[in-house]
Amino acid sequence: MTNAMAALSRRAALTPFTYEPGPLPANEVEIAVTHCGICHSDVHLVDDDWGLSRYPLVPGHEVVGEVAAAGAEVKGLSAGQRVGLGWQCGSCGVCALCKAGNEHLCGKSEATAVWHHGGFADRVRSDARFVIPLPAALSSETAAPLLCGGVTVFSPLHRLGAGPGTRVGVVGIGGLGHLALQFARALGCEVTAFSSNPGKEAEARSFGATRFLESSTKGLESARNSLDLLISTLHTPIDGPAALSALAARGTFCVVGASGKPIDLPAFSLIGGEKSVTGSAIGSPSTIRAMLDLAAAKGVAAVTESMPLARAEEGIQRVRNGRARYRVVLAM
Amino acid sequence: MTNAMAALSRRAALTPFTYEPGPLPANEVEIAVTHCGICHSDVHLVDDDWGLSRYPLVPGHEVVGEVAAAGAEVKGLSAGQRVGLGWQCGSCGVCALCKAGNEHLCGKSEATAVWHHGGFADRVRSDARFVIPLPAALSSETAAPLLCGGVTVFSPLHRLGAGPGTRVGVVGIGGLGHLALQFARALGCEVTAFSSNPGKEAEARSFGATRFLESSTKGLESARNSLDLLISTLHTPIDGPAALSALAARGTFCVVGASGKPIDLPAFSLIGGEKSVTGSAIGSPSTIRAMLDLAAAKGVAAVTESMPLARAEEGIQRVRNGRARYRVVLAM
Repeated sequence: MTNAMAALSRRAALTPFTYEPGPLPANEVEIAVTHCGICHSDVHLVDDDWGLSRYPLVPGHEVVGEVAAAGAEVKGLSAGQRVGLGWQCGSCGVCALCKAGNEHLCGKSEATAVWHHGGFADRVRSDARFVIPLPAALSSETAAPLLCGGVTVFSPLHRLGAGPGTRVGVVGIGGLGHLALQFARALGCEVTAFSSNPGKEAEARSFGATRFLESSTKGLESARNSLDLLISTLHTPIDGPAALSALAARGTFCVVGASGKPIDLPAFSLIGGEKSVTGSAIGSPSTIRAMLDLAAAKGVAAVTESMPLARAEEGIQRVRNGRARYRVVLAM
Repeated sequence: MTNAMAALSRRAALTPFTYEPGPLPANEVEIAVTHCGICHSDVHLVDDDWGLSRYPLVPGHEVVGEVAAAGAEVKGLSAGQRVGLGWQCGSCGVCALCKAGNEHLCGKSEATAVWHHGGFADRVRSDARFVIPLPAALSSETAAPLLCGGVTVFSPLHRLGAGPGTRVGVVGIGGLGHLALQFARALGCEVTAFSSNPGKEAEARSFGATRFLESSTKGLESARNSLDLLISTLHTPIDGPAALSALAARGTFCVVGASGKPIDLPAFSLIGGEKSVTGSAIGSPSTIRAMLDLAAAKGVAAVTESMPLARAEEGIQRVRNGRARYRVVLAM
């Protein structure tokens, strides 16, 4: 039996829940969970904000643990090995996107905590392709949030080739933003933090920012033409023209957080400097590996608050209310 | 004396106008114009739609002609040589963008027909860096519109690496669109045309389209997930979410035409498939060279209506009213 914490219905408080997972499929790994981060999307799943939740719902998709069992066809992973598992637990494996190593873009992607029972539990399962060995240098607790929150901000830096000298801005210094600052610094970028909270300046600088500005329209406009890449982690609306004005020619504005409101973009703001807007979510298994290697080499670590699995509901509330500094991790 | 056609005030009909250009600066070339295309932006300049026009205003920035005189410092161009000149006639030459061969993005870019007298004339001048030798295989009349209209659509294909197998859509099959179809085909792309005019299907196919769809929301949505690059040449509002829906994962929607209305983009449409929106206008001298070489190799040519310089006002009216099929070229 697997011992988990689940929402039994929409918006319900998490309560203990046990289930029988059945025989282990040949392509899957069962992980004995030691740590699981709480991501804002876990709150969206509990609340069924995206209209795709099924209950009982066991959240959790920032998993670190040890391989407890591996299916008959699994290669390259062995019992006792420390591994991570993020948002994605499956894909078709045969489409052009999967074959090119972009499994996260597969139209048949499956999610660890959607229609599967997630990582707020002592055990969780996944297709072995999405179970990633963890470098020894990483702490399990501070690495757990990297599996979703970390790769979500690392992925656009990686895809867009950020490196030494790239001028990167990060809007919103929370769970995602504090990791974005660290990854940008680890890559050698020049880093600007944008926040609505002046009290975060010292911490933002400790995470790698060398400039700290307001995330308001005025703050964005004050960065005029100075950024190659601006990543917004906000879940509140952002001023699109102001964000574009902060970009240098050929710069890219990347949204990884989304409000329900569309971004209004005047075409002239894109045309003049050949500027771009893009979006990003999670990353492929190979991108997760690259991220973990960089984190291990450069000491990137989530700032975490730890609590036991039994207090999962308290953790969910801290994330729902935006009070986590910066990421809550459940320990089993 | 230079003999030109000019608008003497805002929205005025073009009338004969002569001016004395003065001594030729050492870095400039004087071109004896043989052909000059009429671009929609000439209409915007005559009408002062962008608030930057000065009168008398001599339009014209799709120039083909022969080098009449070269300043003392000019290298690589000689009297009698056939050359082209497009929208841009100057830049600072020393900023990082200029040094990297992206002169068109320079903050001090100067335009052939803005605060300078343009190509609706027997002579026009430019900084020699923006005067491009024309390959022998090109006809002067059908190459003239390539200097601005052509490079405007070639530039995003070039920057975004379109090549054999790239699935390219073009929205709006007019002066720009009919060139976009030809360049996409010349690069080996799979080409889809989107038009509001079903009567253009046969011509669109002759320009290189292998699929023809409506440019409506419905038409764009019917192309669901099938395009790597979608170029919109429309000056009317376009349905942003529908345009994004036509893109495959990692696809790019590029606007080269702009309406005054912002494009509304729901962040989720960008995030899910790591899709991008970008803009583009004109191109650098090196991009113009690459375009002309491709046009010469593959027979890309504007479909033109020719008229003498004295009838420039009639040409302007045809472009203003959207009646050009597909590009009006003045012959001197």
